[in-house]
Amino acid sequence: MTTIQDVARLAHVSVSSVSNVLNGKADRMRPETYTRIEEAIRKLGYRPNQAARQLKTGRSPILGLLVPTTANPFFGQLAMSMETYAQQQYGHRVLLCNTHRDKQLEAAMFDDLIAFGVRAVIVVSSLSDEQHIEAAMARGLAVISFDLGPDPGSVIRHDYVLPDNVAAGTLAARHLIEYGHSHLAFAMPKGLTYSRRQKIEGFMAAIDQESGKASGRVVEGKSLTRYGDTELASMGYDMAATIVNMDPRPTGVVTVNDMMAVGLMAGIRDQGLLIPDDMSIVGMDDLTLSAFTWPPLTSICMPMQAMSCTMVDRAVARIAQPDLEAEEICFEPTLTIRKSVAAPSTGRHQSRPGSR
Amino acid sequence: MTTIQDVARLAHVSVSSVSNVLNGKADRMRPETYTRIEEAIRKLGYRPNQAARQLKTGRSPILGLLVPTTANPFFGQLAMSMETYAQQQYGHRVLLCNTHRDKQLEAAMFDDLIAFGVRAVIVVSSLSDEQHIEAAMARGLAVISFDLGPDPGSVIRHDYVLPDNVAAGTLAARHLIEYGHSHLAFAMPKGLTYSRRQKIEGFMAAIDQESGKASGRVVEGKSLTRYGDTELASMGYDMAATIVNMDPRPTGVVTVNDMMAVGLMAGIRDQGLLIPDDMSIVGMDDLTLSAFTWPPLTSICMPMQAMSCTMVDRAVARIAQPDLEAEEICFEPTLTIRKSVAAPSTGRHQSRPGSR
Repeated sequence: MTTIQDVARLAHVSVSSVSNVLNGKADRMRPETYTRIEEAIRKLGYRPNQAARQLKTGRSPILGLLVPTTANPFFGQLAMSMETYAQQQYGHRVLLCNTHRDKQLEAAMFDDLIAFGVRAVIVVSSLSDEQHIEAAMARGLAVISFDLGPDPGSVIRHDYVLPDNVAAGTLAARHLIEYGHSHLAFAMPKGLTYSRRQKIEGFMAAIDQESGKASGRVVEGKSLTRYGDTELASMGYDMAATIVNMDPRPTGVVTVNDMMAVGLMAGIRDQGLLIPDDMSIVGMDDLTLSAFTWPPLTSICMPMQAMSCTMVDRAVARIAQPDLEAEEICFEPTLTIRKSVAAPSTGRHQSRPGSR
Repeated sequence: MTTIQDVARLAHVSVSSVSNVLNGKADRMRPETYTRIEEAIRKLGYRPNQAARQLKTGRSPILGLLVPTTANPFFGQLAMSMETYAQQQYGHRVLLCNTHRDKQLEAAMFDDLIAFGVRAVIVVSSLSDEQHIEAAMARGLAVISFDLGPDPGSVIRHDYVLPDNVAAGTLAARHLIEYGHSHLAFAMPKGLTYSRRQKIEGFMAAIDQESGKASGRVVEGKSLTRYGDTELASMGYDMAATIVNMDPRPTGVVTVNDMMAVGLMAGIRDQGLLIPDDMSIVGMDDLTLSAFTWPPLTSICMPMQAMSCTMVDRAVARIAQPDLEAEEICFEPTLTIRKSVAAPSTGRHQSRPGSR
């Protein structure tokens, strides 16, 4: 087995020089020396013993990743993008935790990451309560959070990466208004989170601009107690009856995400209505899957690939430079038009039997 | 901070007794002693320093997990089930690698796992070439593989956990035959893998039992070069034109998995045909999502939760007992009937415009 000594010998340098290259502390090294060491590492196929390296440097080329559940295609896609980028761009591995949005599971994961010597964690969770995150930061863990922002007026204490959820809400409502819809609804699970609040704010702002010509209501489903794989689709399915029976019945519905839209569309069909003829739907997330639903779902596209890479970049940067200034990095959503939106039907509400 | 010495003091035992409990080497310990140590650990909230522990015992409470991509809901769901079970049942963490079915990425992950001191890995991949897996096993990594079996007549060298794919193929074809379909097709990506071969074998066996009254053809899409998130659905979509234009046109199609069925159904709709009126579809995997497609997809249910737990159980057992005999553990699939299958339309093939 190749040792660090073999590398040092071949490159005609000291073991500590090789160690500096391995640990990213080669800023003051002459470029020729650096290149020689890199070539020796490659030539000998040297792989440092990570366990020993971790103990020695107190850091490990591992990032922590917390998501509610990879069974939800949105988080599954994010986890894949981040893990693949961390691996290919930085040679970092990813320790995964499905938190099911349970605060205790999140805190236990932080404990383990610290015990393992992991220095940075990406939290895709958006629990509003951040105390356990702050406790982990106080113990030296660098935190990058997704889709969660600082409270208004508060100090930014860690990096926040998120889409502009206000813009997302506005884009969705405006698209429906432009098609002539005046009775709008925003569908989401029970309870306000940071991102839901922002989406509603944007949704209502678009309606307010119409000075009374359009109205919008927030429709809440059940509370998400445990965040599993299909709760959101099932909830959307169950909400269809409520929405169809509202008076006046909304002709255009924005859902907080595509998974809920997928369930809602199935529920609306089973209520005997057609989409978009009887009701138009706009989702959020623009899952790749949404191109294959029936009808294909118009959705707000969050730039997931760019957000994923940014989170990994920040996590790696924070390992090298723990005192990096905290930033809020916001990405602009766009509208992906497919076939779930049409002009509202004129005259009385249609209610034809579904085709099965 | 609580130390192992604190635990030993409270439990009135030696530090090495505590260490034995922590490292699962307490077989010969008196139950009372074991209970006393466990209580002391809990009472003091003691968490061993994992990095130090790893170096000392040469093992780490981490499992490796390789999946093609968590962006595919099937693998995202498997990854969630396994990680959650490993965490809650055994307190083990999971190091994730999205391999995109790339052999080099898989081999690099094995290298890293060995360097990290990880002792067991679950490989959800089914690349037919197993040389890199054998190389990793030779270096001491315990491997549990999913949906891949030993070649006929060859020796079982590691644990295989898989559904009975032959039975899955038979169940799907027989369901269509029972509805009166006589022209069947089996749709899959180009190239035979272990599980595809078995599914086709089962599909053909059901047709052969009809002694000439039914026929079945295998329809291959493009070759999957890189395994991303939506290739399968896109491929299914693209295959619709081929299948619709076959002569005789199949009236019942089995797809190798649900993701392909989701795309195929969208493609068939865009070809102006109705499902199940003009063409019946049976998927495989029974994704939770498949209850919300249009129409809801009849599918072969693979017992994912049971398979996930078994893989984790085997991985943990192999860490404690590396010489455990290798086993092939096979799970029976079942049929989940939804609404994508009906009797074939009588008379000439119908071809109505889709409803959008």
